[in-house]
Amino acid sequence: MREVAIIGVGLTKFGELWEQSLRNLYVEAALKAIKDAGVDHIDSMYVGCMSSGLFTGQEHLGALMADYLGQAPVPATRVESACASGGAALRMGYMEVASGQSDVVLVGGVEKMTDVGGDEATYALATASDQEWEAFNGVTFPGLYAMMAVAHMERYKTTVKQLAAVAVKNHLNGTKNPTAQFPAKISVDDVLNSVMVADPLHILDCSPITDGAAAVILCPADKAKKVAKHGAVKILASAAATDTIALHSRKDLAALDAVAKAASVAFSLANKKPSDIQLCEVHDCFTIAEIMSTEALGFFEKGKGGPAVEAGETAIGGKIAVNTSGGLKSKGHPVGATGVAQAIEIVEQLRGQAGARQVAKAKIGMTSNMGGTGASAVVHILEAL
Amino acid sequence: MREVAIIGVGLTKFGELWEQSLRNLYVEAALKAIKDAGVDHIDSMYVGCMSSGLFTGQEHLGALMADYLGQAPVPATRVESACASGGAALRMGYMEVASGQSDVVLVGGVEKMTDVGGDEATYALATASDQEWEAFNGVTFPGLYAMMAVAHMERYKTTVKQLAAVAVKNHLNGTKNPTAQFPAKISVDDVLNSVMVADPLHILDCSPITDGAAAVILCPADKAKKVAKHGAVKILASAAATDTIALHSRKDLAALDAVAKAASVAFSLANKKPSDIQLCEVHDCFTIAEIMSTEALGFFEKGKGGPAVEAGETAIGGKIAVNTSGGLKSKGHPVGATGVAQAIEIVEQLRGQAGARQVAKAKIGMTSNMGGTGASAVVHILEAL
Repeated sequence: MREVAIIGVGLTKFGELWEQSLRNLYVEAALKAIKDAGVDHIDSMYVGCMSSGLFTGQEHLGALMADYLGQAPVPATRVESACASGGAALRMGYMEVASGQSDVVLVGGVEKMTDVGGDEATYALATASDQEWEAFNGVTFPGLYAMMAVAHMERYKTTVKQLAAVAVKNHLNGTKNPTAQFPAKISVDDVLNSVMVADPLHILDCSPITDGAAAVILCPADKAKKVAKHGAVKILASAAATDTIALHSRKDLAALDAVAKAASVAFSLANKKPSDIQLCEVHDCFTIAEIMSTEALGFFEKGKGGPAVEAGETAIGGKIAVNTSGGLKSKGHPVGATGVAQAIEIVEQLRGQAGARQVAKAKIGMTSNMGGTGASAVVHILEAL
Repeated sequence: MREVAIIGVGLTKFGELWEQSLRNLYVEAALKAIKDAGVDHIDSMYVGCMSSGLFTGQEHLGALMADYLGQAPVPATRVESACASGGAALRMGYMEVASGQSDVVLVGGVEKMTDVGGDEATYALATASDQEWEAFNGVTFPGLYAMMAVAHMERYKTTVKQLAAVAVKNHLNGTKNPTAQFPAKISVDDVLNSVMVADPLHILDCSPITDGAAAVILCPADKAKKVAKHGAVKILASAAATDTIALHSRKDLAALDAVAKAASVAFSLANKKPSDIQLCEVHDCFTIAEIMSTEALGFFEKGKGGPAVEAGETAIGGKIAVNTSGGLKSKGHPVGATGVAQAIEIVEQLRGQAGARQVAKAKIGMTSNMGGTGASAVVHILEAL
């Protein structure tokens, strides 16, 4: 297998972008990534997207985006893995370059979520759960994560203030990110006094509904330094894993076993361990998800994720900087784009281009993208070249 | 890149399977393929599916199918490329094995289309066209292919009897295929006297709405003969291409340029030419699509596809046997499964297991899977091992 690098990145603004369409968002991010990389062609492209069928009545996104990007006849493939669609698309692009089939591959993720009403968006998102056993019975994602939070609080004495501390940290990081949807500084009291969505999760424990797109350009690592206009970052490992789709089938509601499995494979492929990582973008669709992710990734022991965030260990400057971008919570969560956007944050940090949120001496970073309640997990480890 | 082989195949019955669910169909095909291959594990899996969100309210198919197949935590990814989703999934699995990332990969395709009414199914299928410029204005797939048929008839004097000859041949082949949805022998008059859907396409020019699944097992070609219980088939080439998603942007309504491009890449990778191929499964979603496909693939000159089918050149025993399985027309068209099912027909023929529809001395076969009106094309060339 060839080694693979990211040589260009492009992000749209994240937010309620009513004047932007699904295709415009993808094309904007892709053109930025192509320009940033400085390449004059692409050999193949991917589109990570969860549910354009339900959100916009459009499937067949590979061909659509190749067409609107002016890139037909290059091969173009859409990849879906619920909220891990972006990470899964990155993994496909990685394998295409690694296999030797293509040299320059564009991987973009996109979701246009605000063209439908809230009920329809909630329905569309619930298709990431088990339709026959969860969604059909009326439970939606805040409810599912609330059950996981309750289990974690029961088992490990995790507190609602620790959950809130995740939101407070991520919104603070988001104030330093110009693409963030909600770059507002908030307090623990703001979270605890906000509307309850599904006990114990308040609305400020939840990531928002977001429009946005993210794209990266991949090429073989041995050509990356020569080709890249603005710096290259090597993909040390790309790994994915799955768990039961329905919560009721899990061995442990308070653990993310697919994340742990993908991380274990990734650490092994990269020959690294958690203490080698200086920063990580994790999938904080709800605050409890960040706490459980930092445990599953091996940064903290099980049950220690809550106290760690409260003690500032996951802040910029802490033991391991988690979600320096603001995370899904503050930056926003256009579901199909998220996995790619996570990689972009790590690339910008490893290139030293993260401005006010720069992590000092960042050499190795990691992303952890999840689908559903953790039934899909995709993990990447990245190193400055 | 490593060479890749197909070592196991599994198909469900195709039809209106009201007692089967989306997940059951996939699992049935996957278990058959695993048993046929004789493998005791898989390293990774793919799910080709076009629009489970709109057909059944279920996305996140990778994790869902891994779970119901009892294969979690293996990586599982859903691939969408409209009606070419199955072919695209096969290409992803091919690259994963070729890259060296995995040794044993399951690639399945599935669609459960009959859980919704006809209007909803027509809407779901129309999401493969350009939502903003085609579907939104009310045109559906029979209308789009009717425009292509009219252009082809105008340019090349193709006749409605030649269109009907495709249906007659494929339904005859389908009578020899136990999994076919409509294994009924029909005549040219039956086609011409059937209900007009979109002039010049009668209902017997159209492929049906179908439930079904198909699955194959891939492994490195150098291990295939040793591993495979029932014979192995090498993938000589896997290629994909795109065209404009909307018909109005095409240079030529009477040509399938993405199919031609993918075929040209595939022939080059395989170091073969059209005359080396003894049989081909093409994407006859409408009769005109088969005629245009046999031209785009290089089996006949442009404009000669119609006379060729009328003269029996594409029948079993003719110059090149096209759609020996019965094709989408007679076998059925569960859209996400089709690309994988096409590969299975070629495998069975190259193994000499095709029974009454066996092509004599079949050594090299080909599949051509399309999405939309040909905006996506995926081509595979297979050789007996």
